[in-house]
Amino acid sequence: MYYTQENHGPYELISIGDLNLEEGGKISDCKLAVATFGKLNEAKDNAILITTWYSGTNKMMEQVYTGEGKALDPTKYFIIIVNQIGNGLSTSPSNADDPIKGPNFPHVRIGDDVRAQHALLTEHYGLDSLALVTGGSMGAQQTYEWSVRYPDFVKRAAPIAGTAKTTEHDFIFAETLGEAITSDPGYNNGNYVSPDEVAAGLKRHAKMWTVMGWSTSFFAADRYKELGFESMRAFIDEFMTGYFAPMDPNNLLLMMWKWQRADVSRHTDGDLAAALNRVKAKMFVMPISDDMFFPPSDTEHEQKLIPNSEHRILNSVDGHLGLFGTDAKVIEQLDQSLKELLSIKVS
Amino acid sequence: MYYTQENHGPYELISIGDLNLEEGGKISDCKLAVATFGKLNEAKDNAILITTWYSGTNKMMEQVYTGEGKALDPTKYFIIIVNQIGNGLSTSPSNADDPIKGPNFPHVRIGDDVRAQHALLTEHYGLDSLALVTGGSMGAQQTYEWSVRYPDFVKRAAPIAGTAKTTEHDFIFAETLGEAITSDPGYNNGNYVSPDEVAAGLKRHAKMWTVMGWSTSFFAADRYKELGFESMRAFIDEFMTGYFAPMDPNNLLLMMWKWQRADVSRHTDGDLAAALNRVKAKMFVMPISDDMFFPPSDTEHEQKLIPNSEHRILNSVDGHLGLFGTDAKVIEQLDQSLKELLSIKVS
Repeated sequence: MYYTQENHGPYELISIGDLNLEEGGKISDCKLAVATFGKLNEAKDNAILITTWYSGTNKMMEQVYTGEGKALDPTKYFIIIVNQIGNGLSTSPSNADDPIKGPNFPHVRIGDDVRAQHALLTEHYGLDSLALVTGGSMGAQQTYEWSVRYPDFVKRAAPIAGTAKTTEHDFIFAETLGEAITSDPGYNNGNYVSPDEVAAGLKRHAKMWTVMGWSTSFFAADRYKELGFESMRAFIDEFMTGYFAPMDPNNLLLMMWKWQRADVSRHTDGDLAAALNRVKAKMFVMPISDDMFFPPSDTEHEQKLIPNSEHRILNSVDGHLGLFGTDAKVIEQLDQSLKELLSIKVS
Repeated sequence: MYYTQENHGPYELISIGDLNLEEGGKISDCKLAVATFGKLNEAKDNAILITTWYSGTNKMMEQVYTGEGKALDPTKYFIIIVNQIGNGLSTSPSNADDPIKGPNFPHVRIGDDVRAQHALLTEHYGLDSLALVTGGSMGAQQTYEWSVRYPDFVKRAAPIAGTAKTTEHDFIFAETLGEAITSDPGYNNGNYVSPDEVAAGLKRHAKMWTVMGWSTSFFAADRYKELGFESMRAFIDEFMTGYFAPMDPNNLLLMMWKWQRADVSRHTDGDLAAALNRVKAKMFVMPISDDMFFPPSDTEHEQKLIPNSEHRILNSVDGHLGLFGTDAKVIEQLDQSLKELLSIKVS
C-alpha cells in the first residue's frame, strides 16, 4: 500500500461535501487530503496554499519547499498543502467506492480541484484571501486557475514550471505517457487488481518520464552520480521506476486527463489574453531553464499577458523534475524569489 | 509494399560480398542500395557520399539535399547516396533470406555500414578519396565513423544533427521508441506477417517521434498549418503515422540498436578525444538549434575535440526533423554552409 499516512502523512481528510464536476457527474462526499503547518493569524491574512503535481503528494511539497527560515515558513505563515483529486490521497479512483471506483471515476478538471479547494478554504478555515498560492507543474495549473477564477482571493501567486493553458506539445506528450500504461494488457481497461499487473506499462511510463522529465544536460552532466546512483540504468530502474511502480494506473490516467485539458481561457470563451488579464495577484511566473515540455518560451508568452507579473527563470540542468528538489541551487533560487514575492506589499 | 523502386528508386543493388560483422556473424552477399547522380571526373576527386538516417532512404536525401545550383550539385560532383544496412532497401531483416531473415538478422554497427561503404567505394568505383561525406542523424554517425576510421579518405565532412558517440539520453530515448513497438502483442518477437499487425505499436512510436522529433517551438508556432494540415492531430495521424506505418518493425529495431551504440571511441579504447583527434577532414559540425535529442550543447562538446572543425548551428524551430526539409530557410542555411565547406581547399 502506497497511499498511506505512513508514506505521506500526517494529513487530514476533510470532506467538502458533494462536488459537481465541470464535465458532468459528481463526486459525493469529496474528501481532500490536507496537511497544514503553522498557525492562522487573527487577521487571517497569512495563509499560503500549496498545490500538488501529477503523481505528487503533500509530503514532497512539505519536505522540499517548506521549513523555518525558508520563504514558506510555518513560523510565519499558515501553510495549507492540498492534494489534488485523483492523486490517491484525496478522493481518487483507487480509494473511491462504487459507482465511481477505479475506471468508473468521472473526468475531473483543474477547475474542479480549485473549486473544491475554495470550498475548503472558505468553509473549513474561514479564509477570504491567500497571501500566496504556489505549486509546480499541475500545481502551477491550479495556481493559474485560482488566480483567474478568484482574482480577489489571491494576493500573490507563483506558478512554477507550468502553464495556464496546456500546449499541444504537452497534450501529445501526456498522451504518449498514458498509452505506455493503457497498452499494457495487464491494464485491462482499468480493471486490474493491483498496480503490479501493470508493472510493464508503468515501467515504460517511468522511462519516458526519464527522457523528457530531466533534460539532455542532466544526462550530459552525469547527474545520476551526484544523486547517488551507480549508473543511469540504476537511476532509471531504482529511482524513476521505483517512484512510479506503486502508483495506481487509474489515478495517474485521471490526473493526466486533467493535465492535458488545463485552460484558464475556459472562463473567457477561449480568449487567453482576456482570462489572464483578470489576474489581480502579484505573480512571479517561474519556469525552469532546461524544462523540455514547459520551456520558458511557452511560459513567457503567457506571462506577458498577465498585468502585474514578472518572468523569473529558474536555472537548472535538472529540467522539469528539478521540482523534486534534486538541485539545491535551484531550490535556493526559488526560495529567494518567493521571499521577494512575499515581501511585496499588495492591497 | 513500401520498399520498392517505385517508392524510392531508381537505385542499384550492389553486392560487396560477405560482410563480417563487429558483433560476430556475417551478412553473406551483402547488398547496398545505391543511387548515384552526376559523373566521376578523371582525377576521381569529385565524389560525395551521402548517408541515410533511421527510417530514411536515398529518395529524401536526393530530393531535399541535392540538385543543380545546390551545394550537392550533380553537374559538379559524383554524388553517391548509400542506404544504410537494415533500412529495407539495402540488405535488411525485411528482405534477407534464411538464416538471417526477420528477427534472426544479426546486430549491425555503424562501423559495419562504413566498412561496407568503403568496400563499395574502393572496389566498385575505384575511389581513394571523398570530397565530402555528409548525412543527418544516423547519417551523421556514419559521417563521424568515416572521418575517424578512414581519416585520409575523407577530405571534408559535415555531420548534421548527430553525434560521434550516442549520448545516454539518446540511448534511453531510442529504447522507449523500441519498446513502443515491441510491447505490441502483434510484434510477437518479430514474427509477424505484415507491419499491419504491429500498427498500434508503430502508431505509438510515431507519436513519440512527434513529441521529440520536432520541438516545443514547432508546436507553439502551429507549424502543422504551414505544412498543409488542418490540425496537429491530422499531422500526427496522416504525416507522422503515415510515414512510419508501412515500415518493417524488425528493420526499425535493427537501425535503432545501431543508433544506440554509435561510438567512434571504440577505435581508441573508449577515449573519445583521441578518436576525434584522428580526424583529418575539414569538418563543419551542424546541429539544429531546437533539436530535442541531438542538441547543440551535445554536439559542441565533441566539435571542440576535432582539430580542423567548426560548429555551425542551423536555426530552425522544426528541431531534429527539420532534416526532412520542412523548413526551407534551414535547408538554405545548410546549403550555404556546404558550399562554403566545399570551397575550402584541402590537401
